[in-house]
Amino acid sequence: MKTGAVVFRLAKRDDLPAIVRMLADDDLGSQRERYVEPLPKSYTTAFDQIERDSNHELIVAELNGNVIGTLHLMFLPSISFQGGLRAQVESVRVDKPYQGQGIGSDMMRWALDRAQGRGAHIVQLTTHQSRAEAHRFYERLGFKGTHLGMKLNLK
Amino acid sequence: MKTGAVVFRLAKRDDLPAIVRMLADDDLGSQRERYVEPLPKSYTTAFDQIERDSNHELIVAELNGNVIGTLHLMFLPSISFQGGLRAQVESVRVDKPYQGQGIGSDMMRWALDRAQGRGAHIVQLTTHQSRAEAHRFYERLGFKGTHLGMKLNLK
Repeated sequence: MKTGAVVFRLAKRDDLPAIVRMLADDDLGSQRERYVEPLPKSYTTAFDQIERDSNHELIVAELNGNVIGTLHLMFLPSISFQGGLRAQVESVRVDKPYQGQGIGSDMMRWALDRAQGRGAHIVQLTTHQSRAEAHRFYERLGFKGTHLGMKLNLK
Repeated sequence: MKTGAVVFRLAKRDDLPAIVRMLADDDLGSQRERYVEPLPKSYTTAFDQIERDSNHELIVAELNGNVIGTLHLMFLPSISFQGGLRAQVESVRVDKPYQGQGIGSDMMRWALDRAQGRGAHIVQLTTHQSRAEAHRFYERLGFKGTHLGMKLNLK
């Protein structure tokens, strides 16, 4: 239960186990993540790449010193839309005990403000067709499901 | 009509007018691009950003010295999937007189090979719900429409 103020900020390397725990704690995520101690090196390698790249911002929500939410905000330069900058959101999670209290919405609004501040003309994301609650969540924030999201596994 | 061999390669700055022409030559694109001479500076600024960033590859298909196709391949470092690298495809176009001859499929397969060669575990894209032919095109290449693609305009 939320008591106190939630702070949104860029993730630090020490936040990585909490981030992976949230990504793994989910029907789809549990099949593809490995939340073990120590974390597989592939996670820290990816974190370092993200941290070095100014087009990527890994964001966490913190409450009373604990990481209880995360999302990955990325900026994509593009020729289309007259060379317009796109923002994209991936890997949005709020820790289960803290869901349903508006933390996800606040975190998304914080990210949308950042995207707007940086001059992005659009924010895009995809969410699995099975996540009906997520669709409504994003619709309440103003997103429209105008596109089909297609994936091809290479491995 | 295609006579001769189509070559796929990274785009050069000189290719930009041909790329913008193809992006604009489409029901959705015509509303958002500005194909004029000289091109608005926002296009060249975006091109320079893309060219400088090793996570971005703007690709063209060339036939007998003419640019007749384009796509934008991007690589997205990610924490999810155990820090797995994603590839994403945007802005896929084949010039109208050359459509229906397999050039788009060849160009996509060339891009998928590049994505695999760089170690991406997945290739993702979104396509407007109204583009039924595009959905079938990507399905034939092995893509599955598992996700809803949502967008929010910021301007």
